Amino acid sequence: SSSSKVVLLPGDGIGPEIVAQAARILALFPHISTTTHLVGGAAIDATGSPFPDTTRDAVSSADAILLGAVGGPKWEAQAVRPEQGLLAMRKHLDLFANIRPVFFPAEKCRALSPLKPETLAGFDKSIVVRELVSGIYFGARTEANYSVSEVEAHDQMTYKQSEIARITHLAAHLALASSPPEPVTLVDKANVLATSRLWRKTVTDIMAQSYPQIPFSTCLVDAAAMHMIKDPKKLNGIVLTENLFGDILSDEASVIPGSLGLMPSASLAGLEKGKPGLYEPIHGSAPDIAGQGKANPIGTILSVAMMFRYSLNMPWEAELIEEAVRAAIDAGTVTADLGGSATTAAVGDLIVTLV
Amino acid sequence: SSSSKVVLLPGDGIGPEIVAQAARILALFPHISTTTHLVGGAAIDATGSPFPDTTRDAVSSADAILLGAVGGPKWEAQAVRPEQGLLAMRKHLDLFANIRPVFFPAEKCRALSPLKPETLAGFDKSIVVRELVSGIYFGARTEANYSVSEVEAHDQMTYKQSEIARITHLAAHLALASSPPEPVTLVDKANVLATSRLWRKTVTDIMAQSYPQIPFSTCLVDAAAMHMIKDPKKLNGIVLTENLFGDILSDEASVIPGSLGLMPSASLAGLEKGKPGLYEPIHGSAPDIAGQGKANPIGTILSVAMMFRYSLNMPWEAELIEEAVRAAIDAGTVTADLGGSATTAAVGDLIVTLV
Ligand SMILES: CC(C)[C@H](C(=O)O)[C@@H](O)C(=O)O
Ligand SMILES: CC(C)[C@H](C(=O)O)[C@@H](O)C(=O)O
Repeated sequence: SSSSKVVLLPGDGIGPEIVAQAARILALFPHISTTTHLVGGAAIDATGSPFPDTTRDAVSSADAILLGAVGGPKWEAQAVRPEQGLLAMRKHLDLFANIRPVFFPAEKCRALSPLKPETLAGFDKSIVVRELVSGIYFGARTEANYSVSEVEAHDQMTYKQSEIARITHLAAHLALASSPPEPVTLVDKANVLATSRLWRKTVTDIMAQSYPQIPFSTCLVDAAAMHMIKDPKKLNGIVLTENLFGDILSDEASVIPGSLGLMPSASLAGLEKGKPGLYEPIHGSAPDIAGQGKANPIGTILSVAMMFRYSLNMPWEAELIEEAVRAAIDAGTVTADLGGSATTAAVGDLIVTLV
Repeated sequence: SSSSKVVLLPGDGIGPEIVAQAARILALFPHISTTTHLVGGAAIDATGSPFPDTTRDAVSSADAILLGAVGGPKWEAQAVRPEQGLLAMRKHLDLFANIRPVFFPAEKCRALSPLKPETLAGFDKSIVVRELVSGIYFGARTEANYSVSEVEAHDQMTYKQSEIARITHLAAHLALASSPPEPVTLVDKANVLATSRLWRKTVTDIMAQSYPQIPFSTCLVDAAAMHMIKDPKKLNGIVLTENLFGDILSDEASVIPGSLGLMPSASLAGLEKGKPGLYEPIHGSAPDIAGQGKANPIGTILSVAMMFRYSLNMPWEAELIEEAVRAAIDAGTVTADLGGSATTAAVGDLIVTLV
């Protein structure tokens, strides 16, 4: 097969440590070449911008991007903040679909969940498909002006039907990847928001017309937030939702598998090959443990598996990685967040050996 | 003491059954008089409006209001919907502060939580204080127009500094009701939203200037959604937040005590007496079990306790009710949602006897 270009963006905090372990997996495949670039706080420190032009050029011509994490207290009070780099990159690459599977990478993880075994019964896998480049994240905004007498601020949540349609088709394709197809649940707040009513009508129409074979239902966001804790099996399958609800629900769901350090994500501009996808663990930069070899590299390594599946057309190799992760967890070679005592590098060592 | 006027709004689904039990508690106090009025779907059926003028007049001159629940599949596809009555009443009475305590009404309930005992360790009580009459619920909205070529919809999230200031003072007063004061956590999305940045600055300034004795911190909404499951003790105390985040987080939190049927709420126009407060259980109208005597009346009965405390100046009687609820749960006289086999009325019977 021809060569693939992967851009590594280690970012801030524990980002460099975890990306280093994932890079060892990429290095096992000679036809994958990697380059490393700056993003987030590290990029602000070096260039003044969280998404410098050199990084933009590199990611634009990449086949896939692996990100560690961005942000940290160092940059919090500043006008230019690390997250702005992430948001700018999402928009620039039109990464409209954020895919966050929530599952147990090894059966052993069930025991580490904050939920009781009986609560987890019947819960298998939930894939949150979050719209990522529109909604209140990218609508018109008015910052507060503190020099007037009535200080106020505004954020606009906007959705075009076309933006909803494209992610609905993507979610349906993911559902059809299983046989029988996974159920799709649309999460919205259609009893209050006009944008949610547009989501409700658009998604319902597309599912009925184009995907009658996929079980489809809708759920209000407040109810979904309850189900996720009380009865997560209700959200088995694909959970399709808008940007802000997806931010909250996917983080809520991500703690079910026992550690935030386990979960991967993909942000895609479509399921067709040709446009670069961005892959990253869902945890943050964890500045409190940075540089100590304590960070769990599994979320980043499983993000490489997603990259192999969605961007590099290497589904078989993706499964190898997932198998190796399972074996490492079963062997007890895990970091402190999973109750073990292995270092970031020791976990990487074992997984590299097993792949 | 002088006589108090309480308006009962049974509403839809299980509403009438649970309000009937709570009304028996009110009837124990001769100086409280009650009248019953229509709201929600029941009001639509009878008058065409979910918040008819007669109801508006009655609640406006009441000392307190007890609501069952509104809504149901019957009215879902209609242009006029039951929830609109609730939203109109909140706005009309300027009920800007929704108070939703999350706690274990009896120690026994800990065993019914979907969370593991070790996850719950250290979690005592979290009081979500949600802004209720502004934000994206009441901002300008544009419904989709399906006859144009680019269909789109908009919802505006708006906050005035004065709206944030008044609920901050209310939350601080609640925190100061305990000694030492409860910690206050502001939940926002200040890394993305202009309104959240206004919340962050306004609340931080007020807490520093007027309430330096109250421990204060901030938390992003996505992180708060995780903490609530993974480590709820991080949210012990007062959780102050805007309308939409409060809707999601308070529902998420409400399942921690084991059953949604247990939790009460208050919606207030201030902590001073004189303006009517609205009290309701946090669960919905549960049309699937309506009329079967299966509904848990405890959330509604504990809402009466909140009414006694915040609107009727009867804190001692509020404690009596809470004690009686605890005793009923300890005696195992509970409905199916708590693993028992008692009917709605049987639970009411025992609690009325115990008060
Ligand atoms: C860093 C922040 C802007 C971002 C978001 O809200 O999208 C993060 O929480 C995420 O989910 O990737
Ligand atoms: C019925 C609905 C409009 C309402 C809300 O979103 O506020 C409900 O979910 C609540 O929390 O009281």
